[in-house]
Amino acid sequence: MTLQSFSGPLLVAIEDELRRVVAYARQPGLEEMHLMLAYHMGWEGAGAGPEAQGKRIRPLLLLLVSAACDRHWQPALPAAAAVELLHNFSLIHDDIQDQSPLRRGRETVWKRWGIAQAVNAGDAMFALAQMSMLRLSESISTETALHGARLFQETTLALTQGQYLDLAYEARGDLTLDAYWPMVSGKTAALISSCARLGAQAALAASTVCDAYSRFGRLLGLAFQALDDMLGIWGDAALTGKSAESDLLSGKKSLPVLFGLQQNGPFAARWAQGPVTPGEAPGLAAQLEKEGARDYTQEQANLLTDQALQALKDAQPRGEAGLALEELARKLLGRRA
Amino acid sequence: MTLQSFSGPLLVAIEDELRRVVAYARQPGLEEMHLMLAYHMGWEGAGAGPEAQGKRIRPLLLLLVSAACDRHWQPALPAAAAVELLHNFSLIHDDIQDQSPLRRGRETVWKRWGIAQAVNAGDAMFALAQMSMLRLSESISTETALHGARLFQETTLALTQGQYLDLAYEARGDLTLDAYWPMVSGKTAALISSCARLGAQAALAASTVCDAYSRFGRLLGLAFQALDDMLGIWGDAALTGKSAESDLLSGKKSLPVLFGLQQNGPFAARWAQGPVTPGEAPGLAAQLEKEGARDYTQEQANLLTDQALQALKDAQPRGEAGLALEELARKLLGRRA
Repeated sequence: MTLQSFSGPLLVAIEDELRRVVAYARQPGLEEMHLMLAYHMGWEGAGAGPEAQGKRIRPLLLLLVSAACDRHWQPALPAAAAVELLHNFSLIHDDIQDQSPLRRGRETVWKRWGIAQAVNAGDAMFALAQMSMLRLSESISTETALHGARLFQETTLALTQGQYLDLAYEARGDLTLDAYWPMVSGKTAALISSCARLGAQAALAASTVCDAYSRFGRLLGLAFQALDDMLGIWGDAALTGKSAESDLLSGKKSLPVLFGLQQNGPFAARWAQGPVTPGEAPGLAAQLEKEGARDYTQEQANLLTDQALQALKDAQPRGEAGLALEELARKLLGRRA
Repeated sequence: MTLQSFSGPLLVAIEDELRRVVAYARQPGLEEMHLMLAYHMGWEGAGAGPEAQGKRIRPLLLLLVSAACDRHWQPALPAAAAVELLHNFSLIHDDIQDQSPLRRGRETVWKRWGIAQAVNAGDAMFALAQMSMLRLSESISTETALHGARLFQETTLALTQGQYLDLAYEARGDLTLDAYWPMVSGKTAALISSCARLGAQAALAASTVCDAYSRFGRLLGLAFQALDDMLGIWGDAALTGKSAESDLLSGKKSLPVLFGLQQNGPFAARWAQGPVTPGEAPGLAAQLEKEGARDYTQEQANLLTDQALQALKDAQPRGEAGLALEELARKLLGRRA
């Protein structure tokens, strides 16, 4: 229970900090624009509450790393708010790009306010994220703020590059496994890696420690994505909250699917014929498993998980925070032991 | 001819700097994403060339201010590239929001690559703008970079707030003149004001000088917008490059239109009935002029122009650059003398 007891006060502080930053956009005559941001963050509107807010994993990871470097986590709060706001900016724009009507069980921003206002709300969230990061100059130092901001820009560019690939892949039928890693490196791993590095940088850790945490974050992100891709096809719908085989129905170019396409067998032949119907999804999932995609994905996830935990060890996390950090990693990677 | 001879080498340096920053996004496998950015900047694809690039007024203004503060303009180049990239990020997203098929005579990014990729390309351009600004730490100092980045975030937030109002006004019939200034302050004046201030900050000018340039930029932006609004209804189509009465046809809530709505006369009555057709536009423009909107807009533009030129005087611009700066302002405000 180290993680739960340790993260309680951190999550409260994260939420306070996020509200403070977003409140900067609440000005006379602009109440509805602020509402769009507060709605997306899960604080206002129909269905607001903890469920709508998400788990705040990224800022939590950042603060735990800071604390595991034997420093107070409080000065790192502006960076923690910044990474969560950046994540949410990308979600607002992702929902437009994917035409998703729902997120966490609620209408998405574009569905409620239209595409034009949603693009703009995402842009505002992005600006707020950047603002928050620069406030490290007050809590720590000018140098730390500048390093943080620079890393943040590189991360954002990587996010857009991963997103570009994801969108470009939709139209392509000739993809192999090689296509997977550049996409998820940008879409998922870059930000989680930056969270871990920023936590260490905010604790003024040595560069070898910062590098180890950065590697840990990257591998954690990749392992998490591989597992998520497995659950997207063979997950228990009751546990994942998605319908079974949902990634087959949406046509997502996930790791098991790319493995299957590379086999050029019955799965690939069916995939080439167009959208999968709910009726045939269970059979196709079984076929994909038979071709070895499930084992392959599990192996990749296991390998990355081992590497992530090794990188964490290399970073030498300290004290209660260090234990909580390891627990968080194991929890995210589905290992209870 | 001071402006033309002085700005020649500046424009070359601006273009070089912009290409250098955007090239950061050119990586193996991401060539098409880089093409979207280079296309929008007017460097590649059908119709590429000076016409497609636009006038680069914002970075030019920034560098001229720096030089008029008696400093070399070269160290300010990262900030100059940053403001132009920020401007272009907002154009890519504006075109999506306004569903505009053409910009500077060429297909817009969303029209050519779809909304999803265009939202993403805009986000990438935004990240590149931020990156460029932080490079002031190399050309000047960490402090200057941090001040610049902070001002940049505030400007971006102001841009999104102005854009929110512009979009929100579309659906409203109850607007008065008061609605105008908050919208154009965000959409137009905030960035031009920041350009002038950044130029002075990069020259390490005294805070009173920075403030005067900032005021100059804000007033220049407001005056420019008022004049642009006038040309949007009564401009000579051959000179403006738009069709005559184009703002009446598009339903834009410009300054003359808001003046007319506030009169609550025949113009307002017709406006309330829905879209204006090309056939009735000339008559409606004449009616709006009869109700005093043209004189009012011209008066506002004159007043703001006088105030802008006074603010420029207060800033005490020096040397050839100072003369070029005044010439630029007068040119933008349509005054040849």
